[in-house]
Amino acid sequence: MIDETHDPARRSWVESGNDPATDFPIQNLPLGVFSRPGESPRAGAAIGDQILDLRAAGLYGGVSLNGLMAMGASLRRQIGETLDAGASPHPEWLVPIAGAALHLPAHIGDYTDFYAGIHHATRVGRLFRPDNPLMPNYKYVPIGYHGRASSIVVSGAPVRRPSGQIREDESAPPVFGPSRRLDFELEAGFLAGPGNRLGEPVPMAEAESHIFGFCLVNDWSARDIQKWEYQPLGPFLAKSFATTISPWVVTREALEPFRSPAFTRPEGDPPPLPYLSPPGEGLDLTLEVWLNGERISRASTRDLYWTFAQMLVHHASNGCNLRPGDLIASGTVSGTAPDARGCLLEMQPRPFLQDGDEVLLRGYGRREGFARIGFGECKGVILPAR
Amino acid sequence: MIDETHDPARRSWVESGNDPATDFPIQNLPLGVFSRPGESPRAGAAIGDQILDLRAAGLYGGVSLNGLMAMGASLRRQIGETLDAGASPHPEWLVPIAGAALHLPAHIGDYTDFYAGIHHATRVGRLFRPDNPLMPNYKYVPIGYHGRASSIVVSGAPVRRPSGQIREDESAPPVFGPSRRLDFELEAGFLAGPGNRLGEPVPMAEAESHIFGFCLVNDWSARDIQKWEYQPLGPFLAKSFATTISPWVVTREALEPFRSPAFTRPEGDPPPLPYLSPPGEGLDLTLEVWLNGERISRASTRDLYWTFAQMLVHHASNGCNLRPGDLIASGTVSGTAPDARGCLLEMQPRPFLQDGDEVLLRGYGRREGFARIGFGECKGVILPAR
Repeated sequence: MIDETHDPARRSWVESGNDPATDFPIQNLPLGVFSRPGESPRAGAAIGDQILDLRAAGLYGGVSLNGLMAMGASLRRQIGETLDAGASPHPEWLVPIAGAALHLPAHIGDYTDFYAGIHHATRVGRLFRPDNPLMPNYKYVPIGYHGRASSIVVSGAPVRRPSGQIREDESAPPVFGPSRRLDFELEAGFLAGPGNRLGEPVPMAEAESHIFGFCLVNDWSARDIQKWEYQPLGPFLAKSFATTISPWVVTREALEPFRSPAFTRPEGDPPPLPYLSPPGEGLDLTLEVWLNGERISRASTRDLYWTFAQMLVHHASNGCNLRPGDLIASGTVSGTAPDARGCLLEMQPRPFLQDGDEVLLRGYGRREGFARIGFGECKGVILPAR
Repeated sequence: MIDETHDPARRSWVESGNDPATDFPIQNLPLGVFSRPGESPRAGAAIGDQILDLRAAGLYGGVSLNGLMAMGASLRRQIGETLDAGASPHPEWLVPIAGAALHLPAHIGDYTDFYAGIHHATRVGRLFRPDNPLMPNYKYVPIGYHGRASSIVVSGAPVRRPSGQIREDESAPPVFGPSRRLDFELEAGFLAGPGNRLGEPVPMAEAESHIFGFCLVNDWSARDIQKWEYQPLGPFLAKSFATTISPWVVTREALEPFRSPAFTRPEGDPPPLPYLSPPGEGLDLTLEVWLNGERISRASTRDLYWTFAQMLVHHASNGCNLRPGDLIASGTVSGTAPDARGCLLEMQPRPFLQDGDEVLLRGYGRREGFARIGFGECKGVILPAR
């Protein structure tokens, strides 16, 4: 619901929050976990180039956001009132982002990655099956897989090039060595709110209340390892060496202005099964990839075949329990345009990632009559293999 | 290393621990987490039909075993000295197993399931590809996938029959409904000890020090959901509705007498790649499936194509970090004999699981000249679909 918290004329006593170019105006107020040198982590909200210390402000004392997620309480309204231009300024509650360490925003118990970018799935599928790129299940099942939670890192953490089994010459045995086809994947993900009990599915009508907020996700992938290992149980070591997320969780409330119709299924596609109907609304977020300072891709979450609500409902449809802070990502977001490709595998013959390459994902919602809501940075630099 | 703690003549002042039929003699001393009615969980060691309260005995005050796992300290020797027939009896430190609630023994951050039972993989593969049952990667790559950690439950928890998308008639769309091909999987798994840092693989020579102890694992599977969803990213909702583990962690030390040579690769099979060589030793554990009180299967972990050490080293070979308490399971253990099949899919036309069925896994090591070391129960009853 769009309300006065989305008023684009609203201003803050934190001046950098009033810069039209900031990712973090007072209409956003994403949540994260930070620490100052020598101090323990605590929760904060980003405004301009500053962090509002939620403990100092008396709004939340937790050391991760899981407690808020469990309650489904984003505090966005209260934080906005605290930072409003009409409220008493409290500069002593602010910490410059530049001087703080940013941590994972929550304990992520489980990480699931979907495969909802239909243009990605089609383009990648065509490499393997030119005549029949999408599997018969694709338009019925929101395809996903369990990812590795332990190796999720926050933006800025370096990413070590993985080694693994690679078999490029099918007449010879595989060899173990550094991946030569290291790739990124441009994704958006959400962190779960209150969660559901084991054995109790979530109906579509309640799905959105289980979505706490969104972040950017780079599901780094070693394509040569993946190609050799993935049958029959799916990707494993090709992806478990690192997944980078952005540190700020942009709440569902902050993204209200960017609701969009769910993906328009082409004529002839089956309707979603009843448990995934109606599909709910999509999100119109723009996602970008910057490689060593050059923007090489720009795609939109409007091109996801399934809504985030459908992903969540499907995930819980067998009774699987989601817990506060679980990360559920979209899969690679690609569009139809030549410059809307969410991974290097789709951009061949562009080379795969080299040691020292910096991959930066950015994301934002933009709509006439509303403040621009940004996600901050999701960045990683490739270190050479060990 | 076999030492005096394995002496079969050793006896305890806890009389039930001296019963030759017990799973938990003084040579075993598996660790778990229990609570008495109205009290909070704490760590204990099983002996006969009793639990030694490790806090009361002054040996460990943690509420889960993760702290011990991080130190790699099983306390087996100290617990044995406390319970030895020559030590002062302290019946006030004992709690009857029958009067306690047993909990998950550790916080399991990530759960990985391998596919190392070659007879299982061959028999199941033959159903899909009669001429070529094993994928070309099988004898090179310890195939595994990420499982779901949130839905791991301890023995005794009921298991709700999942619903999901099923497509039995390929000329019609899939339907959403209760699984009609619900199955168990007979597995052994280990819980990780100290773990490794992200980006730092574990060499074979150090692998065993990262294995804290073992438990039984039932990776419940809905075969009809699996068949329709699994391509191309592997099993997802077909398995994430529940995984049951036994509550007692049998330490690596207690299993020393049951070391066995690694699997003998048939002539013509490739040797393991250097990073998985030498393979280390196997384990000779017998695993059984009891369905509604009737034993329907008995298999051995000697039939695993990869050792647990190889699974661990492969898992970390790309730099993926393991954390204390992570669960790494073998995959379904089957043998070549007709009564050594670790799941119903291999026992067709035996019917799949019915509502009300009780599946009980048992496991033990037995060797002439040593005490029998058991795993206790890994049990679940099927509840009807919601």
